[in-house]
Amino acid sequence: MSNSLVLVINSGSSSLKFALIDTVSGEATLNGLGECFGLADANVSWKIDGKKHEFQLSDNGNHHKQAIDRIVALLEEQGIKQDIVAVGHRVVHGGEKFTQTVKIDETVLQEIENLSDLAPLHNPAHVVGMRAAIAAFPALSQYAVFDTAFHQTMPAKAYTGAISSKLYDDYGIRRYGFHGTSHYFVSREAAKVINKPIEKSSFISVHLGNGASVCAIKDGQSVDTSMGFTPLSGLMMGTRCGDLDPGIIEFLLKKGWSPEQVFKELNSNSGFLGVSGLTSDCRGVIEAMEEGHVGATLAFEIFTYRVAKYIASYMVALDELDGIIFTGGIGENSLPIRSQILKSLKIFGYREDEAANADARFGKDGVITQANTPLAMVIPTNEEWVIAKESMALLHA
Amino acid sequence: MSNSLVLVINSGSSSLKFALIDTVSGEATLNGLGECFGLADANVSWKIDGKKHEFQLSDNGNHHKQAIDRIVALLEEQGIKQDIVAVGHRVVHGGEKFTQTVKIDETVLQEIENLSDLAPLHNPAHVVGMRAAIAAFPALSQYAVFDTAFHQTMPAKAYTGAISSKLYDDYGIRRYGFHGTSHYFVSREAAKVINKPIEKSSFISVHLGNGASVCAIKDGQSVDTSMGFTPLSGLMMGTRCGDLDPGIIEFLLKKGWSPEQVFKELNSNSGFLGVSGLTSDCRGVIEAMEEGHVGATLAFEIFTYRVAKYIASYMVALDELDGIIFTGGIGENSLPIRSQILKSLKIFGYREDEAANADARFGKDGVITQANTPLAMVIPTNEEWVIAKESMALLHA
Repeated sequence: MSNSLVLVINSGSSSLKFALIDTVSGEATLNGLGECFGLADANVSWKIDGKKHEFQLSDNGNHHKQAIDRIVALLEEQGIKQDIVAVGHRVVHGGEKFTQTVKIDETVLQEIENLSDLAPLHNPAHVVGMRAAIAAFPALSQYAVFDTAFHQTMPAKAYTGAISSKLYDDYGIRRYGFHGTSHYFVSREAAKVINKPIEKSSFISVHLGNGASVCAIKDGQSVDTSMGFTPLSGLMMGTRCGDLDPGIIEFLLKKGWSPEQVFKELNSNSGFLGVSGLTSDCRGVIEAMEEGHVGATLAFEIFTYRVAKYIASYMVALDELDGIIFTGGIGENSLPIRSQILKSLKIFGYREDEAANADARFGKDGVITQANTPLAMVIPTNEEWVIAKESMALLHA
Repeated sequence: MSNSLVLVINSGSSSLKFALIDTVSGEATLNGLGECFGLADANVSWKIDGKKHEFQLSDNGNHHKQAIDRIVALLEEQGIKQDIVAVGHRVVHGGEKFTQTVKIDETVLQEIENLSDLAPLHNPAHVVGMRAAIAAFPALSQYAVFDTAFHQTMPAKAYTGAISSKLYDDYGIRRYGFHGTSHYFVSREAAKVINKPIEKSSFISVHLGNGASVCAIKDGQSVDTSMGFTPLSGLMMGTRCGDLDPGIIEFLLKKGWSPEQVFKELNSNSGFLGVSGLTSDCRGVIEAMEEGHVGATLAFEIFTYRVAKYIASYMVALDELDGIIFTGGIGENSLPIRSQILKSLKIFGYREDEAANADARFGKDGVITQANTPLAMVIPTNEEWVIAKESMALLHA
């Protein structure tokens, strides 16, 4: 085990998640979260033996760097720093440049930064985190694992926009897709559940979290996915609008909104938050719905209806469908969401096994549909494990 | 018959279609087209007994008015002007203001004009045509029939965007849907074919023309449709992009494109034209594809794949599906398009009846799928007849 540990870092603009992953078991030996970066209450926290430890960051300077320095100190305190063999970083957008995991060097950092206009909320923050990690672990090889890489197998009819080909030639505008590590992981796990080789298995993977996407997986490969050129498209999300009539943007600009106002609205004030008028958190929306709140009820209905429509549409991309996979924070934990989506798929024969769906262990092997009806299951995702394994594989390549 | 004639006018920005419709038979006693308005070769043409007559318009002044004046002269020459009992106008966008056909007066004209920001390509041109027609037929009642009206039965989960509810409250931003008269008409005709009451019939109506939309019809009522707040969304079209990652617009604006450039691109240089790099015309795209043109082949693949995905997604809106209806210029006339869409729906059991699909009469009653497989059919649309009948009904109300 001592030579199977990879430190996995997911650096966001105001947060930094870390996990020390055992690449053999997939378990996190240690994990934690830095948050509120840029604010007075910036901190790093982690749990050891069930006890939470929190460390306040100073209000001076680079919170990403402070957080990583504190993580280094923690790893030294725990006597496990020397067991770490590599650092793996999650990167949202690899554009067309990155079709697989790469070892990070200055050129790679520049290239990831150059892709920032494709994922302005994510890529610059990844680079800040990587630079801090490189300074803290100068002796370790570090790797970038891209959310977009798994989707590079999509056919042109799925990744090409219905726009001028010149926009693709000049700017690389096409569908890239995200959540690739999650869709990759849960489809491999699902193939084990149905005892079928992944290269002969077809799934529709539904990753529902604060960000959300659906992926059609044919013979183990991504053939379509709902996020596109940016993570703004596809499903309704916590604060993001997902698919939207582009004419709405033209309308708002003509009404005098600035582009900045429009895209802040669509990225940060839409989705569950915008429709409910209450919260971006799915649990809060469902609680309010259960108390009869009209906006929350509508948000729940729109969200589940749109997920069901995406699932149905992706059946077109497949010759056969072995199962629907629910994953991500909402997909793994929200019984009402899964239940409503399965009800919405009734025309295709899906029938919820209510007991299995309500069971925290999801019945047998995560299956939540009735016997002899089309299969849906819950598979907890483990993106960190994918990142750790990819990094380890490249280290030993 | 002499008291069943309605003049139907569809006034665009650079064209004006007219048809004298017998509301009993649905047949056009006379029809024609004014086109190239605003250009030197502006003209009006019509056919009588198979012979085309063309009349050049003067290069001075209002071509809509000139065209309608020439139509009045034509009707007088033909001795049928006095048989016209009403004039019906097609209007693309009724917003939330118009949920049914209305008699046109100055207030209505103003209100249609006020909705111009919702359909900038269409509504102002409608009003120009209406004013010219009112001047030419001052004694006749004139009616506005809205493409949006049929879709007013959509549930909130289908018409509400995944955006802040404030945008709906402040601006009326929601899904309205278009092609309502077409989806309405073909679904009624389809119910006759399957010999089922329309109020117990469910269809997915696929209107494919230069503009294109899909409509889920449950118990005879529209419950979802692919065009949204504006006619830019939904399916890929002749020159329109349809559904698009909103992040692409942000990206282009950041690259220095003006809003005008972006939305001209998405409205006029996308779709079949943009992807193929050749033409907005589906026939031209298919001819080029048959000669091996890469862009044309991709345009065909994207278009048919997206239509099939929309059809599948709308099954979610229905408890059962009595049939898929193809209509519109492309839907009625393009065998390769229909054939590929049905192949893409193979997972749902659709099997093309190749002979029936290739038959200009579409086999028995328009049915183009094999016996004992799910039903798809071709129903020629007749929007003018709907407009004429609605006008007549209101005249006699």
